[in-house]
Amino acid sequence: MINVAIVGYGNLGKGVECAVSQNDDMQLYGVFSRRDPEKMQTLTGVPVYKLDEILKHKKNIDVLILCGGSATDLPVQTPLLAKDFCVIDSFDTHARIPEHFENVDKCAKEGKNIAIISVGWDPGMFSLNRLYAESILPVGTTYTFWGKGVSQGHSDAIRRVDGVLDARQYTIPVEEALKSVRNGENPTLTTRQKHLRECFVVAKDGADLNKIENEIKTMPNYFADYDTTVHFISMEEMQKNHMALSHGGNVIRSGKTGINNENNHVIEYKITLDSNPEFTSSVLVAYARAAVRMKKEGFIGCKTVFDIPPSYLINKTDEEIRKNLL
Amino acid sequence: MINVAIVGYGNLGKGVECAVSQNDDMQLYGVFSRRDPEKMQTLTGVPVYKLDEILKHKKNIDVLILCGGSATDLPVQTPLLAKDFCVIDSFDTHARIPEHFENVDKCAKEGKNIAIISVGWDPGMFSLNRLYAESILPVGTTYTFWGKGVSQGHSDAIRRVDGVLDARQYTIPVEEALKSVRNGENPTLTTRQKHLRECFVVAKDGADLNKIENEIKTMPNYFADYDTTVHFISMEEMQKNHMALSHGGNVIRSGKTGINNENNHVIEYKITLDSNPEFTSSVLVAYARAAVRMKKEGFIGCKTVFDIPPSYLINKTDEEIRKNLL
Repeated sequence: MINVAIVGYGNLGKGVECAVSQNDDMQLYGVFSRRDPEKMQTLTGVPVYKLDEILKHKKNIDVLILCGGSATDLPVQTPLLAKDFCVIDSFDTHARIPEHFENVDKCAKEGKNIAIISVGWDPGMFSLNRLYAESILPVGTTYTFWGKGVSQGHSDAIRRVDGVLDARQYTIPVEEALKSVRNGENPTLTTRQKHLRECFVVAKDGADLNKIENEIKTMPNYFADYDTTVHFISMEEMQKNHMALSHGGNVIRSGKTGINNENNHVIEYKITLDSNPEFTSSVLVAYARAAVRMKKEGFIGCKTVFDIPPSYLINKTDEEIRKNLL
Repeated sequence: MINVAIVGYGNLGKGVECAVSQNDDMQLYGVFSRRDPEKMQTLTGVPVYKLDEILKHKKNIDVLILCGGSATDLPVQTPLLAKDFCVIDSFDTHARIPEHFENVDKCAKEGKNIAIISVGWDPGMFSLNRLYAESILPVGTTYTFWGKGVSQGHSDAIRRVDGVLDARQYTIPVEEALKSVRNGENPTLTTRQKHLRECFVVAKDGADLNKIENEIKTMPNYFADYDTTVHFISMEEMQKNHMALSHGGNVIRSGKTGINNENNHVIEYKITLDSNPEFTSSVLVAYARAAVRMKKEGFIGCKTVFDIPPSYLINKTDEEIRKNLL
């Protein structure tokens, strides 16, 4: 049995707790949190320990799944904990991945551990599909579409607008763009042509709605380059209709082959998720299995999804997968 | 530069020739054939050599891509050539993969070479997607749909019917089944509910068309378990409209997560191919790169797509892929 521990108990940590229970070769040792364990209750009753006492539990844990945020938690926690544990994280600040990789690699090698970073769906399964498709069809173009789903960053940006009580922002792929890409038309798409942004906003009593709407739609980086719609709703409606964690998206590569590039091929990877955090958690758990196997075989250092042989992810023998899945 | 050679020069071999020319880190050394090289002309002018003199060329070749058939060529050629070369094949008789693996593994280890078998789209990319999706969503069901595309085996079966001059059989996924699977309805589907079989038949003058149609539709294994339609056409129409090599298909997994399995997720991998052999060739070429890299690192023996770290497939450094694709 693989002994898994969770660091951080938000939506992602709870998702890992559920996902571990679906895998027969794993058991959950505990949750580690900065909060007071006495005041926490886990979904499955698994114990909660203080994060700053985690080293006391070192011998009982095969792999730590780090469920903190990419902004401030993971840049510190992943390298630090990689000195003493095999670790997996879902670090998703794309621009800072090279720097995070270097920091984690140094510490993982120091501790002779495996660390797998940026595991989830993007980065993660979408990255894998970009790589596989580009490897197979080197002459072509890759498109990534996100949604329909809530963007936490964009929702937060709206909440910072004066007069806004709460907000939820959905990123939605433009149907015509998806259709053109799927048809192998290889379109050149602007930011505006790929995604729509739909905002649901609860305003404070007496706030100037036109001013709020204008401020959102002209916000640089977040909204100015998109077709954005703003709906004002009540707090009741927000809580009734906009609490779901569903998400999804597509990676599509369209490429040419043939002596005169006369043949077209389209590869599409599409996910439709009821729960964004639970799906990410499920990916994390599969890679936790891979980390433990790789460490047993003597590998050390920081890895990404690109470095992991697929067979390491599944709870089946090589003979079984060749017979039943190949 | 990676020096690639092709064994067997049919549609697949020609596809490999085209695919190698799309990859800057590879060059084609030559084609090896059982036919008389004097009577052969390659698409790009690359030389043709006699297959039985291949050992003379050993030091010039980094990897051999075997483009023969699974019925009789590959079971003999892949193990034999793995003694002296790194080899890649597209062996696709699913039921005989374990046996083929054992034979090839023994010879590849003897020669200290890497052999990667069953590379293409099914087996190949579809297998990978079955494995990734099942690893992530262990509670769920995987569905594979093939088509629309020509099945060579089924076309051949029709050609053996008395009174038939030529035939082409298309395998077509049933739209309602695809829709239900994509909706996460997790249906139990019979053979008949998953695929249709559409046949285009050129009959001999004066043949009994009703008899032919009945014989096709009731043929055990091939057609009896399917809804089959038969169209009689002229030889001209066959040659005008039914020579395309297009194909495609989908691997879809629908799975549950959550403390009470309350959330549903659908992962779909879909390919739409103008040329079935050229796409397969493109996959073979990417895995040829991986074979050469793995051999350089000291790995030996038989591998499948499940064993290959994705990063080995692409003509980019690990730093580049972490920065640009992750």
